[in-house]
Amino acid sequence: MPATPDMQKTIALVVRPNTSGIDVPVRQLVDYLQHAGYRVVLEAGTAEHLAVDGIEAMSAADLGAAAYAVVVMGGDGTMLGIARQLAPYNVPLIGINLGRLGFMTDIPVERMIPALADILGGKARADKRTLLEGCVKRGGETIHCGLAVNDVVVARGAGAGMVELKVTVDGNFMYNQRSDGLIIATPTGSTAYALSAGGPLLHPSLQGVVLVPIAPHALSNRPIVVPDSSSITVEIVAGRDISVNFDMQTFASLMHGDQIVISRSPYNMTFLHPEGWTYYDTLREKLHWNEYPAGDSRPK
Amino acid sequence: MPATPDMQKTIALVVRPNTSGIDVPVRQLVDYLQHAGYRVVLEAGTAEHLAVDGIEAMSAADLGAAAYAVVVMGGDGTMLGIARQLAPYNVPLIGINLGRLGFMTDIPVERMIPALADILGGKARADKRTLLEGCVKRGGETIHCGLAVNDVVVARGAGAGMVELKVTVDGNFMYNQRSDGLIIATPTGSTAYALSAGGPLLHPSLQGVVLVPIAPHALSNRPIVVPDSSSITVEIVAGRDISVNFDMQTFASLMHGDQIVISRSPYNMTFLHPEGWTYYDTLREKLHWNEYPAGDSRPK
Amino acid sequence: MPATPDMQKTIALVVRPNTSGIDVPVRQLVDYLQHAGYRVVLEAGTAEHLAVDGIEAMSAADLGAAAYAVVVMGGDGTMLGIARQLAPYNVPLIGINLGRLGFMTDIPVERMIPALADILGGKARADKRTLLEGCVKRGGETIHCGLAVNDVVVARGAGAGMVELKVTVDGNFMYNQRSDGLIIATPTGSTAYALSAGGPLLHPSLQGVVLVPIAPHALSNRPIVVPDSSSITVEIVAGRDISVNFDMQTFASLMHGDQIVISRSPYNMTFLHPEGWTYYDTLREKLHWNEYPAGDSRPK
Amino acid sequence: MPATPDMQKTIALVVRPNTSGIDVPVRQLVDYLQHAGYRVVLEAGTAEHLAVDGIEAMSAADLGAAAYAVVVMGGDGTMLGIARQLAPYNVPLIGINLGRLGFMTDIPVERMIPALADILGGKARADKRTLLEGCVKRGGETIHCGLAVNDVVVARGAGAGMVELKVTVDGNFMYNQRSDGLIIATPTGSTAYALSAGGPLLHPSLQGVVLVPIAPHALSNRPIVVPDSSSITVEIVAGRDISVNFDMQTFASLMHGDQIVISRSPYNMTFLHPEGWTYYDTLREKLHWNEYPAGDSRPK
Repeated sequence: MPATPDMQKTIALVVRPNTSGIDVPVRQLVDYLQHAGYRVVLEAGTAEHLAVDGIEAMSAADLGAAAYAVVVMGGDGTMLGIARQLAPYNVPLIGINLGRLGFMTDIPVERMIPALADILGGKARADKRTLLEGCVKRGGETIHCGLAVNDVVVARGAGAGMVELKVTVDGNFMYNQRSDGLIIATPTGSTAYALSAGGPLLHPSLQGVVLVPIAPHALSNRPIVVPDSSSITVEIVAGRDISVNFDMQTFASLMHGDQIVISRSPYNMTFLHPEGWTYYDTLREKLHWNEYPAGDSRPK
Repeated sequence: MPATPDMQKTIALVVRPNTSGIDVPVRQLVDYLQHAGYRVVLEAGTAEHLAVDGIEAMSAADLGAAAYAVVVMGGDGTMLGIARQLAPYNVPLIGINLGRLGFMTDIPVERMIPALADILGGKARADKRTLLEGCVKRGGETIHCGLAVNDVVVARGAGAGMVELKVTVDGNFMYNQRSDGLIIATPTGSTAYALSAGGPLLHPSLQGVVLVPIAPHALSNRPIVVPDSSSITVEIVAGRDISVNFDMQTFASLMHGDQIVISRSPYNMTFLHPEGWTYYDTLREKLHWNEYPAGDSRPK
Repeated sequence: MPATPDMQKTIALVVRPNTSGIDVPVRQLVDYLQHAGYRVVLEAGTAEHLAVDGIEAMSAADLGAAAYAVVVMGGDGTMLGIARQLAPYNVPLIGINLGRLGFMTDIPVERMIPALADILGGKARADKRTLLEGCVKRGGETIHCGLAVNDVVVARGAGAGMVELKVTVDGNFMYNQRSDGLIIATPTGSTAYALSAGGPLLHPSLQGVVLVPIAPHALSNRPIVVPDSSSITVEIVAGRDISVNFDMQTFASLMHGDQIVISRSPYNMTFLHPEGWTYYDTLREKLHWNEYPAGDSRPK
Repeated sequence: MPATPDMQKTIALVVRPNTSGIDVPVRQLVDYLQHAGYRVVLEAGTAEHLAVDGIEAMSAADLGAAAYAVVVMGGDGTMLGIARQLAPYNVPLIGINLGRLGFMTDIPVERMIPALADILGGKARADKRTLLEGCVKRGGETIHCGLAVNDVVVARGAGAGMVELKVTVDGNFMYNQRSDGLIIATPTGSTAYALSAGGPLLHPSLQGVVLVPIAPHALSNRPIVVPDSSSITVEIVAGRDISVNFDMQTFASLMHGDQIVISRSPYNMTFLHPEGWTYYDTLREKLHWNEYPAGDSRPK
């Protein structure tokens, strides 16, 4: 958050498309921010589906350079999309959920004004997250690179049997794995697809990356957490109809011999939460940790 | 439910002890049943903690022989306790929960009168459950036998390292397992301790029994479901401070060489549910199957 | 195995294609069988890649009708392919593995002659297996049906987010599941894909079918075993690029609203094993159950 | 490894007790080391069960202070025991296994002489490991402290139902967990008990600690990895017969209200491996990662 003393600070707004009734809270938010002395801009995609009079639109790249903070209204999916685009700019992100609590969109829309007042007033809890970057190499050339907030996933198509992947970490051979695929996830991604596939939770401040096999053939192919300073190479040994995706947003088809080289991105992203926010509060609510669904007849 | 045309049908009542405010619903229930022409008796343990004027007390054995049906008010734990005692009598059980929905106590106390009216009037869904019996053999002698609604569990104590168990099914050697212990569960028990230890759900009408290792040393020691006609022998090969329990209600300490022989009990138990009850409705509510706690940022 | 007293009994031979060095054992087998008085025929596909002088070729359908038993040389994949074709004929199958022990091809090629002598001489252990059949219904019409030895799998493509499936069993709603897909497996299939996805083992004689979610969004979406008399309906609620496959051998693309109705096939298949064969011996060897890979420093 | 130029370097020897045929390799080792100019001493416990003429015995504390390196012959259990005692001294440890490869005892006895020659000659791969320390607080007083190479485990006894534990990390409430217990494991311990209970593998250089619930009641209670700079407090809320242990070597009985405060120890330990050793090679061999036990009939 660079100081911009001689000019108005800019707050950018990203809003989930196709959300009925969104105009009212957006208007409230804009009014509040303008009244508080901020310049408000809309992310270009948002501006396309949401007309707010007298508000300038700006590409993600431009607002990444210009904005003091970005407010995202929607769910974690909305946040995921914009966070990847803004990663190079290290502009802080504030997430407002329009329905259920999100891992990244933690402020309920009903409480957005006082929460923003606190956060912008300096009473914020900064929550820095790592990203992954991955490049596909084929015959010595790099043919595709991507950035991931959650995960890089190498997987087979539905009609395609198993893949065989050779995994190497920092030049050391880890294993040849036969499975439906492999998820390489950040701590942020550890609560997304990796969790469904049986991976552990990683605290956001852990300097680690988790490799989670999807339906592995060998029963001992457990998730493994490696330092996020590791360089992970996944080579396609066998299988058909294999692709890699980055946060399920960009894709590349893969051939035998292709290597995907994955490492921590030099970029980070920073979420701003209200003071008092803790990761565990979110986990507990999202994962129903204080409820005891099963086995009431199990003696206590 | 044998017809007893020339005498009043007897309904027995079992109530969870130490439940504040229980007098009012019990009184309502007794009044309703008496008014409907039933003879109401209290199970002896219930009578000790709950005085209801003019209601006879009866031992579990006696009411097993005499009762047309047994109404259990409490939770699954209360049901579990009485169900084991009543197993030899095959008297139908009706479960009323005093708080949260139970797997076996499915009728909310608020709706007990109309639900009972329907069930006793013949609009009932009978839900027959199997039980296990197990006997500990030492040096050719049987030293302890028990009955289990949920499970027979062989496990080590907290300070005792691993156990090694030799498991034989119908005379065929299955494996030597090193672990914290082994759960042998009925379909009813598949939602209790076995589920916590990683076992699958078994539909109550499945004629199967599941063996679930607790924290097994070998990663490939997966839960295995065998027909409930199987005779399962668990022999203590190594380990210290090992015991077997039946529904966590009766226990026996074990020595090396002891064998626990487990098979389906000749007894069954029958729950009566209101028409329209389905096992899946209960599962769904207990396991939050229509909620999606994890990974909102996982693209749909 | 119908008696055919007045004519030679026919033994059919199915051999895995592209197997170097296979000619010698095939010749030994044919010689042995002919010498023992059997008529030997080759399955048509086998005859295409393997020339054995003076041996008649026959379509799977014809040999299904004519053969007294079918000997399969290869691995479990070879067995899987022919077993599906022969299911309607209930002809017994004998599996000879050419390398590693298979779940269905349990006789090592080195011991095939004495093993066959015993089995054909009546010293056999019959091992009857269930199959599944499934039909895809669209707008009231059945557009595809298939048979499965292992499993019916409904799954998304690699680039397609989650599927949402509505599962109904015997007309009772089970759940709406969001996941990568759902495996419905026989006991035979419980050691195949279902096991990789976290399912339990089912003993072949268990009258059950297991539903195993693939990377389910809700952490409580556990595998569930239902009686094999159940009719299971899986409806496509949401998702893209979804297909169903039967043993990964036949496929159908699916649309929203399609229903796949799965039930136990009226057909069974029967493996013949040498006397003394037990399922647990195979499991133990395949799953390394007598080895203790992890945690040697865990105190005993 | 402080240089001790003007005096002989001391190598200490720790040997697993009750190992038949151990005298010959011990004698070889001693001869080799003495011949190479080292002073050899025996750890006192080893000296009690193993007489080697002319070799001085020394307490663990003394050899911790005096030794240039400690050679441990046995398995991971032997290493675990001595490593905890030597932790305060940061003396490097070299592990020789007498049978199967260990995670910490990686040098086969057959190759110990050339391996030691390399390692002591400077061709070594240093592998630094973290340890945990934990203290039990009761009513404001610390009643027990312990050190753990693998794990700190809070667990119930065999006949004692579930425990309820309140877990707090860095002052932030994580959850109330009902389970059989909780394992807090180092990366070293992630391949021991934590793995059996469903935990992920942690690379030894990961700066993390994993909390693995044992048979948790809530199905969403997944393993969670936190930075090893965290202070973890586990409070006993409910349950009977609860104890805490450190590497299963020291124990303390617990009461309701007791708090176990766990953090990274200021001590580390360092294993010396031959050059070329990698953690993944060990994992692969120990976990059979290049074997494919399950599902041969799963199409490739």
